[in-house]
Amino acid sequence: MSIILGIDPGSRITGYGVVKQQGSRFSYIASGCIRLGDGALADRLIKIFHGISELITQFSPDEFAIEQVFLAHNPDSALKLGQARGAAIVAAAHASLPVAEYSARQIKQAVVGKGNAEKKQVQHMVTHILKLNASPQADAADALAVALCHANTQQSLIHMAGQATKTVRRRLR
Amino acid sequence: MSIILGIDPGSRITGYGVVKQQGSRFSYIASGCIRLGDGALADRLIKIFHGISELITQFSPDEFAIEQVFLAHNPDSALKLGQARGAAIVAAAHASLPVAEYSARQIKQAVVGKGNAEKKQVQHMVTHILKLNASPQADAADALAVALCHANTQQSLIHMAGQATKTVRRRLR
Repeated sequence: MSIILGIDPGSRITGYGVVKQQGSRFSYIASGCIRLGDGALADRLIKIFHGISELITQFSPDEFAIEQVFLAHNPDSALKLGQARGAAIVAAAHASLPVAEYSARQIKQAVVGKGNAEKKQVQHMVTHILKLNASPQADAADALAVALCHANTQQSLIHMAGQATKTVRRRLR
Repeated sequence: MSIILGIDPGSRITGYGVVKQQGSRFSYIASGCIRLGDGALADRLIKIFHGISELITQFSPDEFAIEQVFLAHNPDSALKLGQARGAAIVAAAHASLPVAEYSARQIKQAVVGKGNAEKKQVQHMVTHILKLNASPQADAADALAVALCHANTQQSLIHMAGQATKTVRRRLR
């Protein structure tokens, strides 16, 4: 059994998703957002660090997965995103959690089956795979998607597909 | 009396400088570099966090100052710099240190007296103001400069100038 904490860092909202992988099955544990507010930069970054540290204490994850950024839109947003990622990764490393990074393409490929899938499709498949009653909030869904991508990478696709519905199986290949 | 820890974050080397401000005088305590090596991103970022946390334990600074970044060269380097800044700021905030940010222009203005001064001039003036026998390494000098800029901002310029040589006084105005 393995518990995976997925993080979708952002300079305003950092999404998180906790997924349990048991053999070839995985299930939803928790998801949500850390809202950083309008305070000074240091106050916002320490909210990410403390927020993630608390999630680690609460859920005792074995693994930590975060989206890798290849093409940032512009230097200013890249700097802000980098600061949020730095705070998040340090929280994981401080708790001695192994950190895995996945590109947006890898995440979409793993969850939807298409590297260029749209956000809505990712959200839909996360809801479907984890048998949720309602779509999680966008940042939480992205965080659950990176956790699922990590679970998917750790686990053989065949085993995962065996537990999923036929639709999911086809998309997970 | 106030001890200021200045940080010049970078994705390969993070410089640090510790300066003591006593009344209208300031003196050199320590400076150096945290070399991040070629490991995984999480390993490099936790080196910044642990390195700065150790400096805080060792020197018990009252204040923390870091260079503010306005114009990053490109999205990729901005992201990397952002991650290093995030790790550094989280280390300070985790130790409940107030975090001050200064632009490169403010730092050059405070130390050299010219907002567009060259790196060499900053290095020269840091060596001069702190009465060092030799120029510190470039990243350490930048970190000492941001600490001096913070000291300068905290302290009335007149008091500072009163303790400095005539040359320094003119440049610090």
